Amino acid sequence: MNNIITILPVSSFDTSKTRLSPFLSNDEREKLLKSMLRDIVSNIKNDVFKIIVVSNDESVLKFARDILKIDTLKENEHENNYLNNAIIDAVDYIKKFNEEYDILVLPSDIPLIKKENIKYLADCDEDLVISPSKGGGTNLLCFKHTFEFEPLFGDFSFFKHLNEAEEKNMSINIYDSFYLSIDINTPQDLGEFLLHGKKTETFSYLSSLNISVTSIHGQERLNVERKNE
Amino acid sequence: MNNIITILPVSSFDTSKTRLSPFLSNDEREKLLKSMLRDIVSNIKNDVFKIIVVSNDESVLKFARDILKIDTLKENEHENNYLNNAIIDAVDYIKKFNEEYDILVLPSDIPLIKKENIKYLADCDEDLVISPSKGGGTNLLCFKHTFEFEPLFGDFSFFKHLNEAEEKNMSINIYDSFYLSIDINTPQDLGEFLLHGKKTETFSYLSSLNISVTSIHGQERLNVERKNE
Repeated sequence: MNNIITILPVSSFDTSKTRLSPFLSNDEREKLLKSMLRDIVSNIKNDVFKIIVVSNDESVLKFARDILKIDTLKENEHENNYLNNAIIDAVDYIKKFNEEYDILVLPSDIPLIKKENIKYLADCDEDLVISPSKGGGTNLLCFKHTFEFEPLFGDFSFFKHLNEAEEKNMSINIYDSFYLSIDINTPQDLGEFLLHGKKTETFSYLSSLNISVTSIHGQERLNVERKNE
Repeated sequence: MNNIITILPVSSFDTSKTRLSPFLSNDEREKLLKSMLRDIVSNIKNDVFKIIVVSNDESVLKFARDILKIDTLKENEHENNYLNNAIIDAVDYIKKFNEEYDILVLPSDIPLIKKENIKYLADCDEDLVISPSKGGGTNLLCFKHTFEFEPLFGDFSFFKHLNEAEEKNMSINIYDSFYLSIDINTPQDLGEFLLHGKKTETFSYLSSLNISVTSIHGQERLNVERKNE
């Protein structure tokens, strides 16, 4: 077993995935998030030392404990930068273990992550391993040999993280993966995921909603719509 | 040197990249395509045995010969399926060399391809190596040990290619790469490329057009617009 501790920050079920509204209802967006969390956890659980869900939402923490059977941490009250501060809370918590761990931060919406990705990370020795998401974001962030890396999730975070690592003279491995870049924020993302995500819980759930995906040649690539039931 | 022959099918300068109209003018779209071809060729030229541009357009062939300094093939007249038939013409042409080659088919709009990608292909021994593009397409197709693989570019070609390979009992390597998935068909794609494509000719050219990219949080990830000059 490697010594990777995975931090999974989750905002709250109520406010999750708002860019998918009105395509999906509140209740559907909550179920989608739960499906994605199930996929991530079942895909990597046996290959990391520990997974910690960090959240301010009691129902998220309860779901993580009771259903996903993983560790949880209640984040502190923060005035802003919830996501980054939640990660900092989790890193502070891990520091107290007084052991050297590799820290892996994953967003809650990349159900295509696979055990092979974890194996790759375990074999890396760079100070930072990072994967881009669409639109300049970061979908995987793994820092080793140090706890002193400040998460800068938000607009164009991929480049901010690279800059920070360079300023700190950290060695960098850009982990180039299409599947890790597929996060789920918009209806287009649902379409992309439905093409590539068969055999996941998230796929089963979305399939139950009668979402159809066809190819178009306009400004978008995919037409993603819900069939009349 | 490996024995990879790269086929680069190019439709014509006049009709290229129509989904970028009216964001870019006809003339700008031609210059964009030329920049992308320059990038692809300069990035991989020294690492493959040969690159062949196949086209029906005399001005494309002349550009490839005189400026890119690579081989060309005039495709036959086809009534439909231009792209796939152009590739078949090129494979037929390569067959006549009476040598065993690996065939690599690349679209003309992936300027982020790198020599490391070619090195990866050269080290593979699967019958088919394939990379997904956004929207279910194929951005890299490499077949080895056989010339009997039918190109099926078009809607959802990634899955059609996988099916064909399975039906033919070919071994398959899905080459998972975010950078190879970045092709340039829409203004959103230009934005994604501008974030990740520094140090390319294509980046220099697009930068001269005063295109700005900002992050948004709506149905799209990026706001891509041209500043008033």
